Amino acid sequence: MKRSDRLVGMTNYLLEHPLDLVSLPFFSERYDAAKSSISEDLTIIDNMFKFEGIGYLESIPGAAGGIRYIPKYDQQKSMAFVDSLAERLNDPSRILPGGYLFMSDLLGEPTTVREIGRLFATAFASLNIEVVVTVATKGIPLAYAVASFLNVPVVIARRDPKITEGSTVSINYVSGSSRKIQSMVLTRRSLKQGSTVCIIDDFMKAGGTIDGMKSLLKEFDATVAAIGVLAEAEDEEDERVVTDYTSLLKIAHVDDRNKEIEVVRGNYFN
Amino acid sequence: MKRSDRLVGMTNYLLEHPLDLVSLPFFSERYDAAKSSISEDLTIIDNMFKFEGIGYLESIPGAAGGIRYIPKYDQQKSMAFVDSLAERLNDPSRILPGGYLFMSDLLGEPTTVREIGRLFATAFASLNIEVVVTVATKGIPLAYAVASFLNVPVVIARRDPKITEGSTVSINYVSGSSRKIQSMVLTRRSLKQGSTVCIIDDFMKAGGTIDGMKSLLKEFDATVAAIGVLAEAEDEEDERVVTDYTSLLKIAHVDDRNKEIEVVRGNYFN
Repeated sequence: MKRSDRLVGMTNYLLEHPLDLVSLPFFSERYDAAKSSISEDLTIIDNMFKFEGIGYLESIPGAAGGIRYIPKYDQQKSMAFVDSLAERLNDPSRILPGGYLFMSDLLGEPTTVREIGRLFATAFASLNIEVVVTVATKGIPLAYAVASFLNVPVVIARRDPKITEGSTVSINYVSGSSRKIQSMVLTRRSLKQGSTVCIIDDFMKAGGTIDGMKSLLKEFDATVAAIGVLAEAEDEEDERVVTDYTSLLKIAHVDDRNKEIEVVRGNYFN
Repeated sequence: MKRSDRLVGMTNYLLEHPLDLVSLPFFSERYDAAKSSISEDLTIIDNMFKFEGIGYLESIPGAAGGIRYIPKYDQQKSMAFVDSLAERLNDPSRILPGGYLFMSDLLGEPTTVREIGRLFATAFASLNIEVVVTVATKGIPLAYAVASFLNVPVVIARRDPKITEGSTVSINYVSGSSRKIQSMVLTRRSLKQGSTVCIIDDFMKAGGTIDGMKSLLKEFDATVAAIGVLAEAEDEEDERVVTDYTSLLKIAHVDDRNKEIEVVRGNYFN
């Protein structure tokens, strides 16, 4: 097979298998080419991934080595993307009762959701995350997007314990902003004991829900290596029960009465 | 820029923008190359996409023309994939009360979910779908996977009308299997009147939920061009209220008492 053909096939393969270790012999066999040719192909791909700002190929030397596609998104592109999100959200008609923000249109766009996933994966790629955890419903698409770039499974906690999926672990927690007692459940067989996880959600006010997830994950002896939220509400910062998180956007100010809103970059770039 | 570099960049671009019409001048400018060179590049990519079984490039002639990546998944690969899913589900320990099946582990794997999305997108690519609609919770990842290959947004109906997102349209429907009255809501501004949609869900028994979605979508003057479910339960076929659907898997037989289960291919390949 010619180099030009191989490059198309290998690019597709690597993009579909982020963070997976791929051995040179694997490509060598798949495309019937010498290892030295494959090696040259990979240099071309590495350079071009960098040029396109979608990451790079990491070489792991040795007999058990190979290469891994690290989906590191270009910083300038990330900033431009986050700014474009902020601009779209800076719209008073998006203000919902309770200081929430209408974001379902953005969260309904697979391309936007994928970009958000790419950004969190860029930030969390070196943390050896084994599972992405979220709570139903709005965080689900974001969790899958992050997971697809980290190449790990998603586990979904539910607020609604009705669905029988075998034995579950459940906790009660106090919602930080509404001060209501809520519950959250996770199916026992859905998460292995002792996993390293990241938590993904769409919105954080005081952080009660995320704190609840942390408590629930303790029951599974999980290590929470990272917490990623699309948007945080700054007005609630004083009461915040979760402090170690990464946010793409910050709702710096929202005033339902005067129809004012200000959305800025979150702490992602700090 | 050299051909080898361009091929990597263009492959990435096309994979990220399925069904989008891309003009040759766009690539010509992006990679600073003559249109004739770009045209040769596209032939290489087209052949290689076919070889890898991930689709092909469609040429649209004329001044407003260009090419579109059609994510048509190879039939043999599709069958092998569906058979592997069936094999994994053919496990009596997966039987849940009420004739449901534990599938959360499969649905938690982004790679598996993406493959399922690719299969439905292959079947629905020519239907000019404008929106993918699902109902919370389990269908959400599948809906996004389909939508990402069809390059259209996702709209999520909810069973829980508590969440205030502005005015909603709500319907009551009778769940086909449990005969319970349930309700389903959709935010008014989430879906444009008169859209062509496809419905995606994870599981269909008698089809009450999907029938409910159809009623809800009628309120938005939507045309339901396709219905895709990952798995259908054959035992409920007599009572089925939805007949025109595409299923990847069929639970041909499930017996909770004797711990028997039989999962086979759905009607996708008929």
